[in-house]
Amino acid sequence: MLDAVCIGNAIVDVISAAEPEFLSRHNLVPGSMNLIDETQAQALYGEMGPGREISGGSAGNTAAGIASLGGACRFIGKVHNDELGDVFTHDMRAAGVEFTTAHLVAGPATARSLILVTPDAERTMNTYLGACVELGPDDIDEDQIARAQVTYMEGYLWDPPSAKDAFRRAIEIAHGAGRKTALTLSDSFCVDRYRQEFLQLMEGDIDIVFANEDELKSLYQVDSFDDALQRVQGHCEIAALTRSEKGSVIVRGTEVHVIDAMPVDRVVDTTGAGDLYAAGFLYGLARDYDLKTCGLIAGLAASEILSHYGARPEVSLKKLVDEHIAI
Amino acid sequence: MLDAVCIGNAIVDVISAAEPEFLSRHNLVPGSMNLIDETQAQALYGEMGPGREISGGSAGNTAAGIASLGGACRFIGKVHNDELGDVFTHDMRAAGVEFTTAHLVAGPATARSLILVTPDAERTMNTYLGACVELGPDDIDEDQIARAQVTYMEGYLWDPPSAKDAFRRAIEIAHGAGRKTALTLSDSFCVDRYRQEFLQLMEGDIDIVFANEDELKSLYQVDSFDDALQRVQGHCEIAALTRSEKGSVIVRGTEVHVIDAMPVDRVVDTTGAGDLYAAGFLYGLARDYDLKTCGLIAGLAASEILSHYGARPEVSLKKLVDEHIAI
Repeated sequence: MLDAVCIGNAIVDVISAAEPEFLSRHNLVPGSMNLIDETQAQALYGEMGPGREISGGSAGNTAAGIASLGGACRFIGKVHNDELGDVFTHDMRAAGVEFTTAHLVAGPATARSLILVTPDAERTMNTYLGACVELGPDDIDEDQIARAQVTYMEGYLWDPPSAKDAFRRAIEIAHGAGRKTALTLSDSFCVDRYRQEFLQLMEGDIDIVFANEDELKSLYQVDSFDDALQRVQGHCEIAALTRSEKGSVIVRGTEVHVIDAMPVDRVVDTTGAGDLYAAGFLYGLARDYDLKTCGLIAGLAASEILSHYGARPEVSLKKLVDEHIAI
Repeated sequence: MLDAVCIGNAIVDVISAAEPEFLSRHNLVPGSMNLIDETQAQALYGEMGPGREISGGSAGNTAAGIASLGGACRFIGKVHNDELGDVFTHDMRAAGVEFTTAHLVAGPATARSLILVTPDAERTMNTYLGACVELGPDDIDEDQIARAQVTYMEGYLWDPPSAKDAFRRAIEIAHGAGRKTALTLSDSFCVDRYRQEFLQLMEGDIDIVFANEDELKSLYQVDSFDDALQRVQGHCEIAALTRSEKGSVIVRGTEVHVIDAMPVDRVVDTTGAGDLYAAGFLYGLARDYDLKTCGLIAGLAASEILSHYGARPEVSLKKLVDEHIAI
């Protein structure tokens, strides 16, 4: 039995400091996630400062979080058989996640996201999808999906063309086996690109949706969180909605939980907070905890990530949960 | 005119947290630098935790420091034409260092150092030299060395066999052009391996030697810092001796300066402190500052590195110097 299978773009982050002028000179909107091609990636990399490479990818971060909580988790995503592909694979397995998707041996290189961090700690991401565009339905392992309590996918998967088919195939298998499916809306720009598709997925294909306030408001094209909340209620089985320092709101039909954020001494880096929230929530759900407990574990996992650079946990989340949450 | 040419092993650091038991299980001495072959590197990487990749290499860190101080600096070192080689090259150039050594197109991969950080913040390095073993005299650019105030080399260069010849060739060119040469003893294990060679280099081949207390005591096989100090005085033109929180001692003939360490709020990571000390000192020397000022710039550059993870500066050292040191 697996707690979860996470499917996403397999990406190595290349993180570098940048001044705001660098962003404006390259016409980059602060805080945005931009898709760039190989030529653009080479040009931008050539001009940006020294970097540090850390494995990332939204669903990959979530998988690492579930493993750190003690969950049995598998990741599906596509890397090339190159050095960054080796780095991604190593980091995933070293985090305790099963990862066996076949590596590409020809075609585009392993994906990388050139992340520019401005002095206000905001991150602007420029992602070259590379090998991720080759993820397809054949990479979806039927047996694994059928064994997993929940199959979790990132909205970003709608960017590479054939990943969509992999996504739909995974839903078919999961529901065929009586399992749950979950989706994160990924970011408000992603919601802008695929609003109709996401709204439709929530009509039965997706059981659990994760969204932050911006993504949710963008999804329903409304101005207030509460308006969006009224719309999402009943639109899918469970919605887990994150609101940064305001905590989170969890909705299942008429059952609504408002969970306070865990206090954090100093927020160093917000990257991955949503990914780790999803990790905590899905782990709790897979273990049949009540929704409030799921929300508490989720908030605790997110708070650990906020306290350091990088989007994967640096301490055992299982130990943190044992110390802080009564289950 | 160049302030400095730095010659060293071109290495990408792969940094990962590890428990002390992991070190003892792999027979690793805490705090040591071990040379490992490709098979050992693969085996150790396979067992260590998730990593983060940051360009390193002792002389490479020094070059990045000199550039950050506003100096004109060139690096000579060997990478393979692979992804980690691209990362190293990018990071060097993005730091403002000229780096044009021809990449290997066949043979061993770009060097990497698997660095295990235990909870006491001590770092144990396991270095696979890879492409570095192919550095040879042909990579030494005569014109550049002749144009540089000082040519700086790391003791670690004595590990890959033909780098020694490159090292000797660089000394010949530098001295032929009336320029200075400098050497760091690198680490006490390195001194153990090449004690006789280093002692002999200091009889005229090397004008400026950098050493920390352990390295210096190992070089002369004496027990106290002062005994070693008496030995190094007059052994080469200038000795710059670092003593961690005790600051540094600079010796030129009978001229001796004892410089206090810059206060640091919190020492996060000591990796690279010696490399950045050398950067500050060499920059000062190239600009004809007096020895005390050279020592102050050196201490300031080292203190910046102590305050964060990674061995390359995260802020402009030139700005720091302008703010803190009266020149």
